[in-house]
Amino acid sequence: MSRDERFQQAAAALGYAFDGEIKIGGHYVPLVRNGRDIYLSGQIPRVGDTVVVTGRAGAGVSLAQAQHAAQVCALRALALLQRALGSLDEVAAILRITVYVQCSDDFTQHSEVADGASDLLYQVLGTAGAHTRTSVGVLQLPKNATVEMDMVACAATAGL
Amino acid sequence: MSRDERFQQAAAALGYAFDGEIKIGGHYVPLVRNGRDIYLSGQIPRVGDTVVVTGRAGAGVSLAQAQHAAQVCALRALALLQRALGSLDEVAAILRITVYVQCSDDFTQHSEVADGASDLLYQVLGTAGAHTRTSVGVLQLPKNATVEMDMVACAATAGL
Amino acid sequence: MSRDERFQQAAAALGYAFDGEIKIGGHYVPLVRNGRDIYLSGQIPRVGDTVVVTGRAGAGVSLAQAQHAAQVCALRALALLQRALGSLDEVAAILRITVYVQCSDDFTQHSEVADGASDLLYQVLGTAGAHTRTSVGVLQLPKNATVEMDMVACAATAGL
Repeated sequence: MSRDERFQQAAAALGYAFDGEIKIGGHYVPLVRNGRDIYLSGQIPRVGDTVVVTGRAGAGVSLAQAQHAAQVCALRALALLQRALGSLDEVAAILRITVYVQCSDDFTQHSEVADGASDLLYQVLGTAGAHTRTSVGVLQLPKNATVEMDMVACAATAGL
Repeated sequence: MSRDERFQQAAAALGYAFDGEIKIGGHYVPLVRNGRDIYLSGQIPRVGDTVVVTGRAGAGVSLAQAQHAAQVCALRALALLQRALGSLDEVAAILRITVYVQCSDDFTQHSEVADGASDLLYQVLGTAGAHTRTSVGVLQLPKNATVEMDMVACAATAGL
Repeated sequence: MSRDERFQQAAAALGYAFDGEIKIGGHYVPLVRNGRDIYLSGQIPRVGDTVVVTGRAGAGVSLAQAQHAAQVCALRALALLQRALGSLDEVAAILRITVYVQCSDDFTQHSEVADGASDLLYQVLGTAGAHTRTSVGVLQLPKNATVEMDMVACAATAGL
């Protein structure tokens, strides 16, 4: 199965499609290419117009729900890479993800939340999905999202 | 009008000059060049010795004040780029800004705060000001600053 | 004295060795090389299986303890670079560190905490230890760590 097919499958398994526009909410762009490097803006778990997981991990939002939020952030990032590169087969490496988790003051499972995103990257990209990661617990996120994730990736060939 | 003139104009419109030294407060450097890539340290809205916007967005600091803080952070970043490159005309692209907002636990307009910085980058740099962005809400920032912003930029030519 | 000797010395002075495996706690890798660039995952002050400084700066954790946490994060980062490159003499530059400090809502000495990491980088790497830095105060960190630090470095030669 190709990476693009695995992406479709992973999105469908979570109940999403990601075949339309990826909306962003401010005065910036979703992705910038610089040679082979690709910077992606912070993604919240938005599907269409809806942020599908909101609130605070450890206070009303369960670990499983927060992991789901991280999965949706990763799906959005992959959708943006796919659109920019034509195919996920053009992804050479994921250099960094940073995962911000809106949490209660005694919630310490940020790494477990971020595994939701990490596992999805491996599932879709295979060994090219290996990445460095930073996960932290923050006080709030845009639109009360439970998770926000940004990424630096590397393409197989240099961009425009 | 050149980018450098637009920078002067944007700074003057906000009541600032940024023609002196840009102070930083720790044991690090404001900017590192790596080929064409330029990393900038986190900027708080400091003008000379004064942090001009302090406190918590959503609890004593208004959205407009927080946006002003973001504008000053962006001005400082541009001043550092201008000094390092000789002219803002040498900026090829802004790859990433990360905007940290000190906020109350129910403040969710981090993206609107960050638009203060984003709009200023477009105003001064035109299409080269397009950038990816991550904005998050944090518990505190150095010197009680309301906003901190860091940046990765790309120069037209490789540095030292 | 070589950088590797200075590293051994700095670690020993703090009571640590870092000659074994560097453990990480999630589904990701500690380091990714991309040409000369090296991304390192977020490091918490873990030595073997123990996080040696936990809790909140400004509420139970002193500035000195938080600085110690930042030093251990920097030692771990250097240990990872040493293992990947064979020797710290192969480090050309440190491009960025981001230092996240778990703190109380009125703690504003994040920059002073981060100086613990910055000073250690200069001590071991000399002028190659100059770096850009962002330090912020967050609500929580994985495993209740007081500090988390990630890094982007540049090697003297391109990697695999």
